[in-house]
Amino acid sequence: MNTKIIRKVAVVGAGSWGTALGNLFADQCEEVILWGRDNDVVQGLNVRHENSKYLKGVPLSPKLKATNQLEAALEGADLVVGSVPTQQIRGVMGPVASKLRSAIILNSSKGIELGTHLRVSEIYQELIPEAQYAIISGPSFALEVAERLPTAVTVACQSREVGTLIQKQLSNSYFRVYTSTDVSGVELAGALKNVVAIATGVVTGLGLGYNAQAAVINRGIAEIMRMGKRFGAEPLTFLGLAGTGDLILTCTGPLSRNRTLGVKLGQGKALSEIQRELGGVAEGVYTAQSARELAQRNEIDMPITEQVYQMLYQNKSARQALIDLMGRDLKEEWS
Amino acid sequence: MNTKIIRKVAVVGAGSWGTALGNLFADQCEEVILWGRDNDVVQGLNVRHENSKYLKGVPLSPKLKATNQLEAALEGADLVVGSVPTQQIRGVMGPVASKLRSAIILNSSKGIELGTHLRVSEIYQELIPEAQYAIISGPSFALEVAERLPTAVTVACQSREVGTLIQKQLSNSYFRVYTSTDVSGVELAGALKNVVAIATGVVTGLGLGYNAQAAVINRGIAEIMRMGKRFGAEPLTFLGLAGTGDLILTCTGPLSRNRTLGVKLGQGKALSEIQRELGGVAEGVYTAQSARELAQRNEIDMPITEQVYQMLYQNKSARQALIDLMGRDLKEEWS
Repeated sequence: MNTKIIRKVAVVGAGSWGTALGNLFADQCEEVILWGRDNDVVQGLNVRHENSKYLKGVPLSPKLKATNQLEAALEGADLVVGSVPTQQIRGVMGPVASKLRSAIILNSSKGIELGTHLRVSEIYQELIPEAQYAIISGPSFALEVAERLPTAVTVACQSREVGTLIQKQLSNSYFRVYTSTDVSGVELAGALKNVVAIATGVVTGLGLGYNAQAAVINRGIAEIMRMGKRFGAEPLTFLGLAGTGDLILTCTGPLSRNRTLGVKLGQGKALSEIQRELGGVAEGVYTAQSARELAQRNEIDMPITEQVYQMLYQNKSARQALIDLMGRDLKEEWS
Repeated sequence: MNTKIIRKVAVVGAGSWGTALGNLFADQCEEVILWGRDNDVVQGLNVRHENSKYLKGVPLSPKLKATNQLEAALEGADLVVGSVPTQQIRGVMGPVASKLRSAIILNSSKGIELGTHLRVSEIYQELIPEAQYAIISGPSFALEVAERLPTAVTVACQSREVGTLIQKQLSNSYFRVYTSTDVSGVELAGALKNVVAIATGVVTGLGLGYNAQAAVINRGIAEIMRMGKRFGAEPLTFLGLAGTGDLILTCTGPLSRNRTLGVKLGQGKALSEIQRELGGVAEGVYTAQSARELAQRNEIDMPITEQVYQMLYQNKSARQALIDLMGRDLKEEWS
């Protein structure tokens, strides 16, 4: 593998974030190809340079090509951006693992695999142990990146060399990449923030005000860090773009899918009803289950995750969940 | 001094936060008296149980009494809440220092003194070296505390005993107090966040989107931590309620004074014009100057503070300030 030049980039997954990253790479690399299942999306990208399903109305680079042939897309790619939902990574990437052995994989998905409790890097490690793995995370609405508005993110990779290569390839006047070597920290921060986003939405749905919302976010960071510490992550990671930064975005920007789900929970709706309304499951619903199992197994105190789990899976009322959170023993902030 | 019981509380300063804290203590203590300069406010508090200037329309506890006689208010107080603007603490508290020798001082003001560069604890240390000092900080809009909406804050005190005493006295079903011993960290976090709030407003004023706003907040936390480290603060403090928590509130809630000032800067207005519109100075304007001087003297890299300073005091355009921020060398996130 030559880590010095990224000539061809393949993006697996033509959702909003995959498309925005593909568009960004198109500004910076020779060849970028985006794989998607949906023929209409693929054709719209190739013909009109628009992703009419996920980034409607945003003009994309004509250099960004699309295909629904995954093997062809991966052929000769120096860097592969993984942008399919976490629970689908094994199904999509497993069959083409042999094509990825000499590539750098840059994962942009967030979550913990159900059942196995594996982080995304661990899934890839099982599928393609030979590949270099990096993760990109941080406060980054896809729409704003596609519109070339200023954005800063973290890229974490065990290899500083590979991390710096991606940093240089991706950074430009509107997109700023910071590097980190704390892969597990960035992954946990990204996955667990979706659970905290649900809790934040619950506070809004209950009509409880900004103080309570900020407190839940903040105590959410504290418990994410407790789990991070248990798995060897750097505490500073959770203070960074992939941790607090991403949470801030969830709470200041237009409603995220996970937060929207929380708002509806706070308004007293049941999960099944919410899923009908949203037309699918938000990633945090899976992560709440995986994270709660991980926390229990490792005896990590994660009261917000626990309450979110009980609201999602045990029909606990939002109001009772909040009362149980507020009524805990008084303590030092970082005990 | 008996640290076991807080019987009488005096609150110095009848602004919105002083009034809300007085009201909270009235739920929890025998006697609470609030000192204010404004006779109309004092009378309104005593007669109608309302602060019609700063918390209009919010019913306050009839147990909360008000006076414009500072010495009388302080007489026999076990705990004194300091709630006057930082630049006025010396002028208000200096002349009555002898009354405060056996009290616990709970400061709720944020800032760094101009010229001396002293934090609030250091000002009090000069004025009343015998007193016990604590600081209360965190994401807490006064209005929501007065309306008894759920709120969580940090109280920092070098003495764990005193910190726990305040924690127990203040905590109830809607107000949750976490303790800390990191006084300088909590003070720096509270002061410097006002500068970052200005920068966040600038991003909004420039119309740059949520990603950029989250990035500025996040990189703001990073530089606040650099200064904190230099002055012996605990890194975790900046991740806590008094740090990130308070910043999140600034960015998710109704516009804070400092952020509003930033929005107007971002829209291209000059400081003098903004001050006319706001009818006064936001604390962050002073803190930007003190913090920039402290950073220069101690060779601490604080790019956001530097750019805010240049916008405020050197007529630098907001757009150029942002370009200079984005164009810095690429680096590791926590170098």
